Amino acid sequence: MERVAIIGASMTQFGQREGEWVLDLLAEAGLECLEDSGVDAAEVDHLYVSNMASGEFEGQTGIPNALAHDLNAMPAYTQRVDQTSSSGGAGIYAAWQSVASGASDMTLLVGGEKMTHKTTGEATDVIASLTHPAEYKTGVTLPSFAGLTARHYLERFDAPRESLGKVAVKNHENGLDNPNAQFRKEVDLETVLESPIVADPLRLYDFCPITDGSAALMLCPESVAEEYADEYAVITGIDGATDTHVVHEREDPTVMGGVVESGKGAYEMSGRNPEDIDVAELHDMFTILEFLQMEGLGFAEQGEAWKLVEEGYTERDGELPINTSGGLKSKGHPLGASGVAQGVEIYEQLVGEAGPRQVEADVGLTCNVGGFGNCVITTIMEAAQ
Amino acid sequence: MERVAIIGASMTQFGQREGEWVLDLLAEAGLECLEDSGVDAAEVDHLYVSNMASGEFEGQTGIPNALAHDLNAMPAYTQRVDQTSSSGGAGIYAAWQSVASGASDMTLLVGGEKMTHKTTGEATDVIASLTHPAEYKTGVTLPSFAGLTARHYLERFDAPRESLGKVAVKNHENGLDNPNAQFRKEVDLETVLESPIVADPLRLYDFCPITDGSAALMLCPESVAEEYADEYAVITGIDGATDTHVVHEREDPTVMGGVVESGKGAYEMSGRNPEDIDVAELHDMFTILEFLQMEGLGFAEQGEAWKLVEEGYTERDGELPINTSGGLKSKGHPLGASGVAQGVEIYEQLVGEAGPRQVEADVGLTCNVGGFGNCVITTIMEAAQ
Repeated sequence: MERVAIIGASMTQFGQREGEWVLDLLAEAGLECLEDSGVDAAEVDHLYVSNMASGEFEGQTGIPNALAHDLNAMPAYTQRVDQTSSSGGAGIYAAWQSVASGASDMTLLVGGEKMTHKTTGEATDVIASLTHPAEYKTGVTLPSFAGLTARHYLERFDAPRESLGKVAVKNHENGLDNPNAQFRKEVDLETVLESPIVADPLRLYDFCPITDGSAALMLCPESVAEEYADEYAVITGIDGATDTHVVHEREDPTVMGGVVESGKGAYEMSGRNPEDIDVAELHDMFTILEFLQMEGLGFAEQGEAWKLVEEGYTERDGELPINTSGGLKSKGHPLGASGVAQGVEIYEQLVGEAGPRQVEADVGLTCNVGGFGNCVITTIMEAAQ
Repeated sequence: MERVAIIGASMTQFGQREGEWVLDLLAEAGLECLEDSGVDAAEVDHLYVSNMASGEFEGQTGIPNALAHDLNAMPAYTQRVDQTSSSGGAGIYAAWQSVASGASDMTLLVGGEKMTHKTTGEATDVIASLTHPAEYKTGVTLPSFAGLTARHYLERFDAPRESLGKVAVKNHENGLDNPNAQFRKEVDLETVLESPIVADPLRLYDFCPITDGSAALMLCPESVAEEYADEYAVITGIDGATDTHVVHEREDPTVMGGVVESGKGAYEMSGRNPEDIDVAELHDMFTILEFLQMEGLGFAEQGEAWKLVEEGYTERDGELPINTSGGLKSKGHPLGASGVAQGVEIYEQLVGEAGPRQVEADVGLTCNVGGFGNCVITTIMEAAQ
């Protein structure tokens, strides 16, 4: 089967986009991606919109149809992809399938979310509705799961609290060089460790913010990629997998089954293994998640990711740079956009467009986590040879 | 490329399902579809959930993850497909792509919506949010578009008001033989024509009801279909297309561009033409839509569908039976389920499981309309040879 190429990418400024709505953000990223890839709107066959909750956040649904109109992409087929906080990764999977199946010769994927007009409490309520009713109706939210898991991890593996803080410090440092990041702000370990407690032992700086933003990718069959781009990337492996929806039913709270299974699928499909990965974007919605994904994806043994972080292994000049974009932590986390933005960063790293964040990379990986690992999509991308 | 087969189908009772929620309905249809197809939950690779608005209707999101859990289908990949009122058709397209791309060897598609716990006004508000903000913020809803279009059609093509009423009469008559239909109730023309005006010239009986319900299909590569079923159907053509999101920007209000374009794509892919179609399920959310789809899909010339209806051409014993299931009109319209339920009816007709509704059919078609034709998915299915 022919491989699927990525020939263009874009993202808007992430942060608080006052007075702009999700459709404005989607249109901005979509137009920029058309320009970046040299594709005319009329050439777009399929348009996928990754978005979790425009209805709940804005009272506006049908946004893919509205976006097709705004981009003047009619009669392109369009559809919304929702996989909660992994809607962006699910969008990459849907877009990949549309091209790989032959349904589309040119697919534009745009992910976005508008959230900051809501209070943190209101936004958390919308996000919490993705958990099992038995959980959220009793008040359990994703941050509380993160706190429980972090406590368990630190005690069981004798890991210092500081190691989690270093994830935040590293990702903020990377974000300094990302003009689109929500927080371009250096943060030292002391600041993280002394920030207000949110869900013990996790503190404010262990959490990603509430964010508005959008990101986009253009996908097509590899056979036509060269018509549009000298440098492009190819998706060589992609898979998604669920874990129990009820978090407390999992055998080991430090093992995210969805990460393990989707990673296994993506490695198998690409013929790659963890050692081949040169750069990765992981879903650091909470600092503890970066450890769990490093372990689930085979970058570290169980209970040992924290050591690699302590050693600087995952820093920009380390063996395996993780979250060179700044991650969700510093870049921000507009739900539907985040997985797409992970893809944007890896694409830019692979085609040499990452500017001051550039690392040497031929093979990159993204891992996008829905809920508390309820569904995970892992993608392996490679620079075209 | 290998063809994609449908090896099983199910639908729940449509209607008012008091005390049950969307997840209950999805699980019921999902379990029944597993049983009908002889597939074990552990064999399911991908699970798609067609649903427009569980967040808005119930405050519950992440339902695909919850359903994977409830069906014990982990680690199957799962995702929600939203294309407003055509979410079901979009689900068939997504499920088809998942198999055709090789991503999945066994895909379960379940569509569903829970709506009747809301007042008609509340439900209409949610549905209206799919239109362009410039439209719904000024109070234009889908029924009002239908009224305007019907008035235009009747006057321009000199069609009698009765012809629209006959669509309702026919579909109610078909629904009498569908045990899962919301309204199993014979309706005569007089009743339709004397029912309360909703959007002049359309009256209550020109509209589909608010409905709870779910429907499911099982898809796999044709090469393995025979392991599961003696009789199965094959999707030979499928395409989706948008029209302007702003309805008043369309050149001709009686031409639904999305119907025309998606139909063209499905015919081309299957090598079929309108004359080959033996049975069709059209999206009769409003009676006038059945005319517009008949014309857009080439079953009638522009302005002449009403004549075919008058002649009985689309009745169960006519040349081209349309909406043998009872259509949205009598069967009901749980948004995310409707497009899937159209596929269920055509599948049952093709494999000879339609019971008292059975017609002779080797080739069937479904047309699922999102919004007021904002995005349309047309599918052609054939009995396996």
